[in-house]
Amino acid sequence: MQKALSQARRAFVLGEVPVGAVIVRNGKIIARAHNERETKQNPVRHAELTVIDKAAQKLHSWRLLDCALYVTLEPCAMCAGAIVLARIPRVVYAAADPKAGACGSVFNILAEPKLNHRPEVVRGLLADEAGQLLKDFFRAARK
Amino acid sequence: MQKALSQARRAFVLGEVPVGAVIVRNGKIIARAHNERETKQNPVRHAELTVIDKAAQKLHSWRLLDCALYVTLEPCAMCAGAIVLARIPRVVYAAADPKAGACGSVFNILAEPKLNHRPEVVRGLLADEAGQLLKDFFRAARK
Repeated sequence: MQKALSQARRAFVLGEVPVGAVIVRNGKIIARAHNERETKQNPVRHAELTVIDKAAQKLHSWRLLDCALYVTLEPCAMCAGAIVLARIPRVVYAAADPKAGACGSVFNILAEPKLNHRPEVVRGLLADEAGQLLKDFFRAARK
Repeated sequence: MQKALSQARRAFVLGEVPVGAVIVRNGKIIARAHNERETKQNPVRHAELTVIDKAAQKLHSWRLLDCALYVTLEPCAMCAGAIVLARIPRVVYAAADPKAGACGSVFNILAEPKLNHRPEVVRGLLADEAGQLLKDFFRAARK
């Protein structure tokens, strides 16, 4: 999660909402990404979507088996949907997102019994650090 | 929707689940895509995600204002989430997806009052044609 936070800090300095993600397989980081919505002017360039895209390209497989995704903010509907589609077995996130989170806050896509994959979810790891970074960003943005 | 069906047929011949999408702006198609999960071995290469990605690149904007998305199958959670993030004002889909649809079937992400965008949704346009194409695909796949 420290490496995901490093990615979030990279987003921060670019003027992006600071969210970062990494995918780990067999104890090794195979992909890392941060939010790039503004930089790329692209609504789908959330950290999680990009890191899944990169990991699939690296593994030449749409199934990201034996992988864990670490992300600094609770995934939104798009990103939670992508996690299910990629069959990622384990998701760890830091801060909750009461406004748009889709892993328990607004929706709980990762726990939906009708879908064909339900990852293990760990919540709150380094949540204070990730939350503080987001608070600092939005405080600066309002100035 | 006929143009989205043409895209779905392209997916079919590639051995992909036949789903196609187009984005229309001011009466003109600005992006078209079909499902490429198997071809690209990438879980995020659904027709809708790709067509939104392409349209944003074309307009140099993450906000797809004045756009309508036509897709042959009810969008899943990932794609419905992307539609909300892109602020697409109007979504038209053909066949419903009772297994994973996120526009009324399993979830209704496009109508969630807690999210900051709720597009107009039109359902069932050319649903028979789109549904038949999917049936033909899955019947052939089982052989």
